[in-house]
Amino acid sequence: MAEPLFEKVAIIGIGLIGSSIARGLRRGGLSSTIVIADRDEHARERAAALGLGDLVLADSGEAAQGADLVIVCTPVGVCGTVAAEVGPHLKPGAILSDVGSVKGAIIRSMGPHVASSVHFVPAHPIAGTEDSGPDAGFAELFDGRWTILTPGPDADEAAVEAVRALWEGLGAKVDVMTPEHHDLVFAIVSHVPHLIAYNIVGTAADLEDVTQSEVIKYSASGFRDFTRIAASDPTMWRDVFLNNRDAVLQMLGRFVEDLTALQRAIRWGEGDKLFELFTRTRAIRRDIIEQGQDTAAPDFGRRGSTKGS
Amino acid sequence: MAEPLFEKVAIIGIGLIGSSIARGLRRGGLSSTIVIADRDEHARERAAALGLGDLVLADSGEAAQGADLVIVCTPVGVCGTVAAEVGPHLKPGAILSDVGSVKGAIIRSMGPHVASSVHFVPAHPIAGTEDSGPDAGFAELFDGRWTILTPGPDADEAAVEAVRALWEGLGAKVDVMTPEHHDLVFAIVSHVPHLIAYNIVGTAADLEDVTQSEVIKYSASGFRDFTRIAASDPTMWRDVFLNNRDAVLQMLGRFVEDLTALQRAIRWGEGDKLFELFTRTRAIRRDIIEQGQDTAAPDFGRRGSTKGS
Repeated sequence: MAEPLFEKVAIIGIGLIGSSIARGLRRGGLSSTIVIADRDEHARERAAALGLGDLVLADSGEAAQGADLVIVCTPVGVCGTVAAEVGPHLKPGAILSDVGSVKGAIIRSMGPHVASSVHFVPAHPIAGTEDSGPDAGFAELFDGRWTILTPGPDADEAAVEAVRALWEGLGAKVDVMTPEHHDLVFAIVSHVPHLIAYNIVGTAADLEDVTQSEVIKYSASGFRDFTRIAASDPTMWRDVFLNNRDAVLQMLGRFVEDLTALQRAIRWGEGDKLFELFTRTRAIRRDIIEQGQDTAAPDFGRRGSTKGS
Repeated sequence: MAEPLFEKVAIIGIGLIGSSIARGLRRGGLSSTIVIADRDEHARERAAALGLGDLVLADSGEAAQGADLVIVCTPVGVCGTVAAEVGPHLKPGAILSDVGSVKGAIIRSMGPHVASSVHFVPAHPIAGTEDSGPDAGFAELFDGRWTILTPGPDADEAAVEAVRALWEGLGAKVDVMTPEHHDLVFAIVSHVPHLIAYNIVGTAADLEDVTQSEVIKYSASGFRDFTRIAASDPTMWRDVFLNNRDAVLQMLGRFVEDLTALQRAIRWGEGDKLFELFTRTRAIRRDIIEQGQDTAAPDFGRRGSTKGS
């Protein structure tokens, strides 16, 4: 096995992403020592029982002491608080990173707590499942997926390369972009899709004319696809929407504008307009499959209790 | 093997659903003879090559002659035309059925062509994939899924029981409801979900600030889940929206109303409202899994090119 990339990595927050990083670090032999901090006692117990790190602590500042790399894996809304706790304990030359789905707000909340002797390289791995917590993670989560880095214009090149090497070591492919562009891209490919999934599930649950048991029973006709995303972690997603407000509202405005045009086409029986859109969207699915970003198996290759559905 | 339920079944339209019925009839030994009609030459060639029926014809009237059961499996928009072709050829006591995702409009378009000596029992199997055509079908498609029957108030009880036995023989569970209630239920669990999936994919494709290649590259962050549904057959879905207009517009109104409330909550930073909804929707996912209507595997158990994503 190659030389480890880091002597000591500290992971703050041991949920789905943090615990997948811990497992991936072990798999790749990427760090000699892994220290974990989480303020939740149950998460610490599970992390210890699963052997995810060499040391599991409650205090994030303590965990950060002497670390070459500290990765904040908490919900976006508390990243600033964590940076304030961690900041004073970081050694000169240490790298601070994160995994937040929002980058502009993270930089604004964490940035002020980063000393000039420390390298701040924000990151966003495009990976996850609808499950949460230390038991939900797995080492392969990042294999073949993208991770986006959004370093500042004056970022230390060696530090950016070290974070790139980390993510490549975890199996990911790495892209670099500005935080502003990141937030716009993910508003449309991730945040608005989650919002409308949450919304349709809520709408269906609240109807008077259709019972909730009918919605569940007949969900295989389309609805159930949305419920997977709408089962994602509520705290994480609340923080995403509160912290990427402008880009989400901008993209949501476009979505509603387009939906209104479809609504009008249905009302006036304009079948050609519907057909034209429904044909275009099929091609995008094909591109996603060709680029290895989704399975080609019908119905996502669902198996088990829904065999053949 | 038990006695076949029918001497002769005619399937008009040999796409995903029609070809799955043909395969399921064979699997269960449900019909002594299977006759297929499709006006598309390529579909007929594939049906013959795949051995889906005992006879493959272009003319639906000819196929219906002497059949005990005729199932119309065409897009909703041409069911009326097919009923007009088939009607004069049906023998007294024959059963006419369909598989349309919309029931009120089907009854209005097919009903006038059904002689009083023929039993009309509309049906809707809640099953399918995003793929189309005779090659996409498979015998297990209906296993464990629901099929809804919407017979009229004066329907012949024995005919309804025969159609129920057919669907149970194909592996499905059977429910009966009025066409009006069916159309309302499926507007929210199927039609509006498809519409917003088509819509978000269209919106993302049309942006100026985010390129289509970025949308595809980073689609694993949520967007790709919508593209599966948005790859469904364009003709079928155009017809669904044109033929279930009132219920779709009613449910779409509710969806937009709820979305506007969420938009406002984001704008004003009302995290509690977001958190409350995001928690409620998680429970609905759990119920769907508990009732065997979806897989419990994270990420739908996706495999292959997206292993571990």
